[in-house]
Parts: sequence; structure tokens; C-alpha cells
Amino acid sequence: MKKKLKLGLFGFGCVGQGLYHVLNETHGVKAEIKKICIKHHGKTRPIDASYFTYDPSEVLNDPEIDVIVELIDDAYAAFAIVKKALENGKHVVTANKKMLAEHLEEIYELQQKHNRSVLYEGAVCGSIPIIRNLEEYYDNDLIRSIEGIFNGSTNYILTKVFEERKNYFEALKAAQDLGFAESDPSLDVEGFDPKFKLAIAIAHTFGVFVKPEDIINIGIQKISAVDLKYARENNLTIKLVARAYKSEGNIFGFVAPQFIPLDHNLASVRNEYNAVLVEGAFAEKQVFIGKGAGSYPTGSAVLSDISALVFDYRYEYKKFEQGDGLPFSNEVFADVVVSFPDGTLITNRDFEVFKGGYQGSGHQYLKGSVSLKKIKEWSLWDDVSVILAPDPNLTAINQAKTQELLSA
Amino acid sequence: MKKKLKLGLFGFGCVGQGLYHVLNETHGVKAEIKKICIKHHGKTRPIDASYFTYDPSEVLNDPEIDVIVELIDDAYAAFAIVKKALENGKHVVTANKKMLAEHLEEIYELQQKHNRSVLYEGAVCGSIPIIRNLEEYYDNDLIRSIEGIFNGSTNYILTKVFEERKNYFEALKAAQDLGFAESDPSLDVEGFDPKFKLAIAIAHTFGVFVKPEDIINIGIQKISAVDLKYARENNLTIKLVARAYKSEGNIFGFVAPQFIPLDHNLASVRNEYNAVLVEGAFAEKQVFIGKGAGSYPTGSAVLSDISALVFDYRYEYKKFEQGDGLPFSNEVFADVVVSFPDGTLITNRDFEVFKGGYQGSGHQYLKGSVSLKKIKEWSLWDDVSVILAPDPNLTAINQAKTQELLSA
Repeated sequence: MKKKLKLGLFGFGCVGQGLYHVLNETHGVKAEIKKICIKHHGKTRPIDASYFTYDPSEVLNDPEIDVIVELIDDAYAAFAIVKKALENGKHVVTANKKMLAEHLEEIYELQQKHNRSVLYEGAVCGSIPIIRNLEEYYDNDLIRSIEGIFNGSTNYILTKVFEERKNYFEALKAAQDLGFAESDPSLDVEGFDPKFKLAIAIAHTFGVFVKPEDIINIGIQKISAVDLKYARENNLTIKLVARAYKSEGNIFGFVAPQFIPLDHNLASVRNEYNAVLVEGAFAEKQVFIGKGAGSYPTGSAVLSDISALVFDYRYEYKKFEQGDGLPFSNEVFADVVVSFPDGTLITNRDFEVFKGGYQGSGHQYLKGSVSLKKIKEWSLWDDVSVILAPDPNLTAINQAKTQELLSA
Repeated sequence: MKKKLKLGLFGFGCVGQGLYHVLNETHGVKAEIKKICIKHHGKTRPIDASYFTYDPSEVLNDPEIDVIVELIDDAYAAFAIVKKALENGKHVVTANKKMLAEHLEEIYELQQKHNRSVLYEGAVCGSIPIIRNLEEYYDNDLIRSIEGIFNGSTNYILTKVFEERKNYFEALKAAQDLGFAESDPSLDVEGFDPKFKLAIAIAHTFGVFVKPEDIINIGIQKISAVDLKYARENNLTIKLVARAYKSEGNIFGFVAPQFIPLDHNLASVRNEYNAVLVEGAFAEKQVFIGKGAGSYPTGSAVLSDISALVFDYRYEYKKFEQGDGLPFSNEVFADVVVSFPDGTLITNRDFEVFKGGYQGSGHQYLKGSVSLKKIKEWSLWDDVSVILAPDPNLTAINQAKTQELLSA
């Protein structure tokens, strides 16, 4: 018989409550919540008051508690909790992508030092079991790229903007009302949230620890009506894409909006859904699609981690330990469409390879290949939006028409 | 240090050779091929002759061999090999879906009895890690349905028929030339192959062992030009769908062609790709897409099983052992479109619920709800084709237009 794990929770927001319900509704998972540490006094709580404490040490120092489930917003406080939990001989389950991305190498080392496990499937694309599959199923595959839609709230916003012709602010409001957007929406719309997830995914895909500040992120906040028009006229949609790939001895990775042909697999990933495309030498192209936000999907990922701890599961970080880690670099060119009002100082001479442009009413589009750093620089200018061009090398499951479209 | 596993192979066809290359090209998997048992004398083999034997006992009785990798076509002989291997204390990796589907309960019992592991990820949807995810990641989820495109060669044929307007025989020939179709194409086109896979998936999803002969399968061989026309006029495509779901205390499951709206996730799964859609109470809707046929994708799944054996991995069959198995039943109604030439004795009175029909030139279509058994019966009549109607309850990731289309 397997032991019954006792859990100490930090935070009881939407994911924590989702977990509580999931634990109650499923049988067969040998775990129970013993104590929940919360921050705000006086809130009405949906479960018995005896579960709750305001004192972290009451949870962290309880010798009966086997696993700390860390579900708070604050990345700084979360890391302190994780560190203390490991020092106290407890395993940790967390869905805090910011904290993980910022401290992943240290967390890896703390696991080795204290011989305890930190699992975080819920941190990357909610319900999609991508970390587990990278760790176990693709552990021997030579992965060339991992990419996809890593943020549910921006995907929800872009879906509403395109399909219901809402404006950006209406769509953001709707996402927040549904609880898909984080407490600070800039983390989502400026592309920080998917960047944190990409940094974590890179460690498990390519065996490299990359600091999130070294990954360039461009958000969706500059996408204009002009860009939507361009997309519609060319049978494209726009998705916020996170991508990392191996090329010429380097690992490249970034987050940016991209024009996506309507028959590409990513185009049909709508609303709060996320998608991950993995391309390996042996398994070839694989797609995982699932909900990336919401209390139940994330609660379910956290539960799967807890369930794995019953069987003493640990991430192996095999790609890192095998030492095939290549250097991470931003020295790469990408094809973009940049759009801006007349008078903006961008010309065809700014491109590495210029691929054409045209003039609308008071507005210009230029297409071509530019460095990632230039893309980042332009994205910070007023009224300028830079969107990655539909990429003929974009991983896709045999879309039918894209090639025609690209050559048109 | 983990031990280095020694493998004994049975069969050296496309999957075996794929495995050989994958083992050679990746480092880090602690396994090597010791011996390969083959059947046909005199064939030219791409690797050193010292690997080969024609005597099964030379592999099965070799005390140095830890794992038997069974990759032969013949299900009867394959089961004898698996049984003997387990009796001799060896683990088994196999991709033989027919053998597994026909003997799954016995194979489960043999694993318990001999305390050895049989892994078979490559048997169900090639490179898609569905068994592993059902076993581990969804082990505590309350799964409502599992469905998808479980056969690469029929999907290849249907894709060519629709997109390149090839006829059925040209498309079948192309699939066979590419090595996607099995040695007996009727296993694919009549829906037996996806049925075997569905039987295996049902065991890991719902904890029930179902004999493949109890699952109704309808193939694609009766689909006519009339059906293609109907599909095109209604913004639909046709996919061969395998489906199992829980409803009213029963497990239902079948394989049949179905009209699929063009914006449904399954519609964009083309050529030899497979897709699996899982719907659970907590993780909600999840989609896995990957190559379902070909030597490398299946070889990669077999390799992942071998790699898991290095870590003493075994399927838990948790859903079965928890005993929540519901009875499997065929007593269910489904919505279909049946098409047939004038003079065929099918009328609106044959339907449980008749939903309309119309007359083409010398040809009729009738729509409505009928029992699975009636669908099977009709599918055996000359010139009659029965195709499942686009189902409003079909699991899908938020397709945009289906609802409009269905209510039109």
C-alpha cells in the first residue's frame, strides 16, 4: 500500500479551490489537505475555518506534512516558501511560472541537495502534460523545436478580437471577467507570462537554464486595426507564439505575435486553449492542445503532480545532466511585417533582407528579415506594430494551403 | 547507475529497423540489441548477419536478454512469444495491436503472475503517447470520452480523396507505396485496425477489457462519390473515427466514418497523422496529434517503452484495479446520413427518429437516429453507405462555426 500524502497549501485562490474540489470528487488519489496558509484576513472561505492559518511556519514546520503545494501570486514570497520547504525535507508542487523561471537552476540544485522533488506541470500551459512528456516520453528524442500558444488570456483576447470583432479593451475585460487574465494583465498582454513558461520548457527540452530577462518578449498590445485588416485580407489570424529551437549550435527562443494561416493547427486553437507543438527527430511532429487557464484544468495538473509524488516521482533533467546544452542566443533574424503611420522613421534600408512593402491611407507596411533585437526596438516605438510573418518553416501538421498562400 | 538493458527482437521490418536506427542515433538510452529473430531466409539485411537467428528459443531462452521487443505481423505467433517471454522472466515491448486487443486481459494477468512488464505505446496511434498519459497523467481524472483518428492509412486515403480528388483505389495505392497501409489493407479500410487500438485504449481509459469482436466497426470502403459531394456541399470532410464514451452507466464504443465540420480539430488532421481527443472532468478537453504510421514514429514509441523499462516502469491498470469498470454495450443510437441508389429497401420508417431526407438523381439520402446494430447491418448492403452525422456533442476545442452549421 502506498502512503497517504498530507498536503500543506499556500494560497487558496482559484487553483487552490479547484484542487480542493478535484481531490474531493475523485477517489484513488492518496492525498489529503491538512493545512492551508492564507494571507488576507476576513475573507469568506468556502471550506471549514479549521483548515486555515496565517502563519507560514505552522505549515512549513509541521512534521506530518509531506508536500507543500505553493499556489500564491507573489513570486518572491513563493521562492522563499519553496526553499524552506525543501530544507525541511518536504516535496513541493507549484504552478508559479514566474518564480520557477527566475529560479529554475537554483531549484534544480536544491532538489539535488535535499533529495526532494519539485513538480510544476501546472506552471506550463495549464492542463497540457508537456513537462511530463518532455521528461519521460521524449527523454531520448532529439528535439528540434518546441513552440505554441502558451498563454490562455491573450489567446482568448485575440480570438474575441478576430471572431467577434470586439475591440481590444472589450476583449481584455471579458477575459478578466472570466478569470483568465492574471491579476496584473500586463504580464499576459506584454508576453511575460508565456516567456516564463518558455524558459521552463527550454530547460526540459534542450537542457539549458535561461534567465527570463534574456528572452525577448513582444506582446499583443500594439496590434492595431490595420494589422487585423491585413490578416483578414490574407486569410491569416494572429496568435501570440512562444518558440524555441535549435539551429547551428545555438538555442534561440522568443515570444512574439505572429500571422498564422487559417489552416494551420494553431489557428484552430481558440479562446483560453493553449497548444504545444514539439518537433523531434524520431517522433516527428506532435501537437498537444488543452486548456491553459481556469481553476479545474490547472487544479488537475497540480493533482497529477501530487499523484506522481505518491510514486516518488522526480524530474530527471536528463537533457541537462547529459550536458548537451547549447548556448542560448538572440543573434538571429526573423521575417516580420511591420506597420506604422506615415512619418515614422522606418525604411527598407533598416532590413537585413527587404521583401517589399506598400502604402495604405496614411499607413505603411514593410516586410522583410530583421534581427530579433531590432524587432524588440521597433516594438517599443509609438504606433508601430511588428508581427512575425507566416513562416514557411513553422511547425505544422500538414496544413493544406499554407504553401500556396505563402508563395502567392 | 542504471543497468544497460539487452534486447531480443522478433521481426526486423520497418519498425524494427526504425528502432535500430533510433537506438544508434540517440545517446543516453541504456539499451542495446543483442539478437534478432527473423522468419524469412535469404532476404538481404541492412545490418550485420551475426545479429540474426531463425530460432525463437535462441532469443527467448537467452538468460542475458532482459527485454523481448516483439515486432512481427502474425498476432497468433506474437502472443506465443509474449507469453513465453514473460514465463522466462523477461519484460516485453510490443506494437502488435491485434494481438494485444485479443489477449489484453490475459496479458494483464500474466504480468501480475510473473511480475514482469508489458509495454505497448507503439500499438496505439504510433508516436502519440496516449497510453502513458492515460496511465499516469489522467490516472485520477474522471474521463468521459476518448475518440479520434486512430488509423494513419485510412486518414491518408481520405485526405488524398478529399484534397487531391483522387479516387479511392489511387489513394490506397499511394498509401501502400508509402508503407502506411498494413500488409492486409482490409484491416485498415474496414476499420479493424482502429478497433483493436480502441479496445486497448478502453482498458486504460475506463478500466474495462472489451473483446474486439464486441466492438462494431464500419470501414471507409463504401464511401461513394455521392457522399463526397454531400460533404463538399455542406463544408464537411469525412474521417474514420474511433470513439468510446461513458453514458448512463455503460461504456459505448465503435469505429465508423463520420462527417466532420471543416473547422473541427479533427478536420485539420491530415495524411498519416492520428489524433486523440480526451475529455475529462478536470483536465477538460485535450487533444494529442502525431504521426500514426511510419517506421520512425512507431520506433520512437517503442524506444520510449524500452527507456521506461530501464526505470522499471509498469502500467498500473489503475482504473481496472479500482473496479469502477462499467459494462460495455452496443445498445445505443447514433445520428447518421445513409445514402443509397433508388430501389434500395430503406425508408424513413426504419429510423428510430427520422430527421429528413432528399432525392438526388437516382440516389437518396436519409438522415436520422438509428441503433448501432442497424448501422452495421446497413453498412453490409450493396451500394449503401452509412456515415455518422456531424455530432453536436462531438468533442472539439471550441470550433467556431459548427453550431451554426448544424442548426442550418
